[in-house]
Amino acid sequence: MTRHLVLQTDFGLCDGAVSAMYGVALSVDPNLKIYDLTHEIPQYNIWEGSYRLYQTITYWPDETVFVSVVDPGVGTDRLSVVAKTVDNQYIVSPDNGTLTHITENIGIVSVREIDETINRLPNSGESYTFHGRDIYAYTGARLAAGVINFEQVGRELLVDEIIKLTNPEPTVSEGVISGNIDILDIRFGNLWTNISRELFIQSGLTYGDLLEVTIETNDRLVYKNAMTYGRSFADSRLGEPLIYVNSVDKLGVAINQGSFAQAYHIGTGINWKISLRKINNHTYK
Amino acid sequence: MTRHLVLQTDFGLCDGAVSAMYGVALSVDPNLKIYDLTHEIPQYNIWEGSYRLYQTITYWPDETVFVSVVDPGVGTDRLSVVAKTVDNQYIVSPDNGTLTHITENIGIVSVREIDETINRLPNSGESYTFHGRDIYAYTGARLAAGVINFEQVGRELLVDEIIKLTNPEPTVSEGVISGNIDILDIRFGNLWTNISRELFIQSGLTYGDLLEVTIETNDRLVYKNAMTYGRSFADSRLGEPLIYVNSVDKLGVAINQGSFAQAYHIGTGINWKISLRKINNHTYK
Amino acid sequence: MTRHLVLQTDFGLCDGAVSAMYGVALSVDPNLKIYDLTHEIPQYNIWEGSYRLYQTITYWPDETVFVSVVDPGVGTDRLSVVAKTVDNQYIVSPDNGTLTHITENIGIVSVREIDETINRLPNSGESYTFHGRDIYAYTGARLAAGVINFEQVGRELLVDEIIKLTNPEPTVSEGVISGNIDILDIRFGNLWTNISRELFIQSGLTYGDLLEVTIETNDRLVYKNAMTYGRSFADSRLGEPLIYVNSVDKLGVAINQGSFAQAYHIGTGINWKISLRKINNHTYK
Repeated sequence: MTRHLVLQTDFGLCDGAVSAMYGVALSVDPNLKIYDLTHEIPQYNIWEGSYRLYQTITYWPDETVFVSVVDPGVGTDRLSVVAKTVDNQYIVSPDNGTLTHITENIGIVSVREIDETINRLPNSGESYTFHGRDIYAYTGARLAAGVINFEQVGRELLVDEIIKLTNPEPTVSEGVISGNIDILDIRFGNLWTNISRELFIQSGLTYGDLLEVTIETNDRLVYKNAMTYGRSFADSRLGEPLIYVNSVDKLGVAINQGSFAQAYHIGTGINWKISLRKINNHTYK
Repeated sequence: MTRHLVLQTDFGLCDGAVSAMYGVALSVDPNLKIYDLTHEIPQYNIWEGSYRLYQTITYWPDETVFVSVVDPGVGTDRLSVVAKTVDNQYIVSPDNGTLTHITENIGIVSVREIDETINRLPNSGESYTFHGRDIYAYTGARLAAGVINFEQVGRELLVDEIIKLTNPEPTVSEGVISGNIDILDIRFGNLWTNISRELFIQSGLTYGDLLEVTIETNDRLVYKNAMTYGRSFADSRLGEPLIYVNSVDKLGVAINQGSFAQAYHIGTGINWKISLRKINNHTYK
Repeated sequence: MTRHLVLQTDFGLCDGAVSAMYGVALSVDPNLKIYDLTHEIPQYNIWEGSYRLYQTITYWPDETVFVSVVDPGVGTDRLSVVAKTVDNQYIVSPDNGTLTHITENIGIVSVREIDETINRLPNSGESYTFHGRDIYAYTGARLAAGVINFEQVGRELLVDEIIKLTNPEPTVSEGVISGNIDILDIRFGNLWTNISRELFIQSGLTYGDLLEVTIETNDRLVYKNAMTYGRSFADSRLGEPLIYVNSVDKLGVAINQGSFAQAYHIGTGINWKISLRKINNHTYK
């Protein structure tokens, strides 16, 4: 049995780095099926790598092996690990926060350190800068191909000790839901928040409600205006902003056929705060 | 039997959207063979999505299933369809003009509406914004994998009622051939017109002829100069413009190793007009 | 037996060109396994196409067939060839310098001209501008699929007559190692020189040594400063420059988590010279 192998990096596709990883994996097993998550994670942005894994892995078959290489600490003593999720999928990556969203939203049942005396590309020589090729793609391919099983990755670590990035929970207080802008739907400039549909519904909100949306970063007010909660972009007029449930079941903010992020210069991460409160159509000004 | 599945979107490759579509398709059948047309269609540009299908599908095997998602109307009452071409290929897409060039240049023999009560990803939840994943990739994968046949897509529609974008024919009058600049050969900045090689030949033109080329948009003259009709770029000097037959058997305009589109700020679409007339080498000035 | 087929071009992924090549290859054999090296070679940049092949092919299995199309001379009398390497891999490309680095660093044992009377896509018509689809992808696919063997490509040429780009060797003189900046690790802005680790070691240098690095182009001094030779980026402080051994076993110059190339506007090619000499920690100023 071979499992699907899915690669994610911050390497881009303009040079030969990703292709070298493919070659290494196919040299392990010429019949491996290899796919891409994305290779356009912004350089060193572990948070975004973590999020893209969370965003996609549940749509892939059981047993899929993901290799994620966003690795600013290559050459330090950060560990290299393979994590096994509650859904029997595997993630091969540096232990540097890449597993944050999977740990918190999906669940990891076991994690092992990659034993580089076994799981390192033979003759990968005196280069200490391309673990993506020499360790992660190689180990991921061996696991996907069944050359090694999960136990043969290396010694078991404690799941509780997986390194996690700071990731605050959204809060509800006096009718105001507050959260963060986690990430962008890049191509369309929509904001994706960490506020779940459930939390939104629990707060008694329904389609058609008018909401006041406030966006702040580092105590600077960036946006404060009213918009409607719609089922889809088409529920607002062309060019009009709206609140909607995005494709990972959280609240998004969009401009119908425009880019909210570009229009208001919105960034992402824990310093970008968003809050919502229901208002009355007739009195808002 | 499984058919090849080819995906086209305007989603870009920078986040997890396309990878989620791959995962959904491979969850339908882990052995599916999935490929990309392009994911860099400019956002909401249905015309360009339609053209890229026309440009490529004849080079793919019979029975290939194409999924094309350029869908500004997601969430409206636009239909979701599967079209079958005269060459037994399938196109899964919103019925929003994406089938324009295939209908006019290749031919569609039958079209069916996707029955979303059957052909929608189970538990795709309360998200109404990612039909590319939940409906199009899912339905395309089921058709490619043989889980459903064409009849099981849903009720048959009339081919004549497929939505088409305005797409004027080129004309010939008093020795002047007039047409539109349909699209760019993006990377090299060459213009691709809607004037076919046959029409050009019928007008009595042969390699080496000198032509006056006029480009206008919205009644503004953008370019007017003479160039030679060559077999390939190398028939002109480095940096010299030329007329040539492009890889879809229509007339193109290029600068040998330069970008004609960038040099003269040329756009594309029905408001970009081009006309050609044969002139005499000795008298043009 | 089918071999892996790996495509490289300067076509980009924004239009249908690469997808048409995939379609042609899969029409030769629907079971072919096709992969990408990169399609983002800068337009007409044969040097970079040559380098990316050298950088990656040793990581791919024996018998892999590479198709590389960077072809500013399409339509001229430049030859189309298939080269066989010492490792039994194949490269299908125009004979325009694309084979430079493979010839010099890996070794080519035989080269044949593509006989276009046999190895050209049937009915590829009156287009003379897309040999990537009509000749290179088609021939590469036939070779990978075993439809033809290497002898059936066409007549044998002399290996010595393969066209090569100028590619100077690094030199050592009076303790100064001098070479060129061959190319960038694009995403991270690291410089990759043509100075091998062996040459560096032979000069008596070891980890922790301080080196004076001088970069010049066309007699203009671009950079002159001291940096340490480290094992990996992490051996220098964040934002500090360093010398390291890159993933093809040559010397690289980087800024830890910064872009050296952008910081100092560094270009690549034979007009970009770099020299290194060991200095004393205590006396350098």
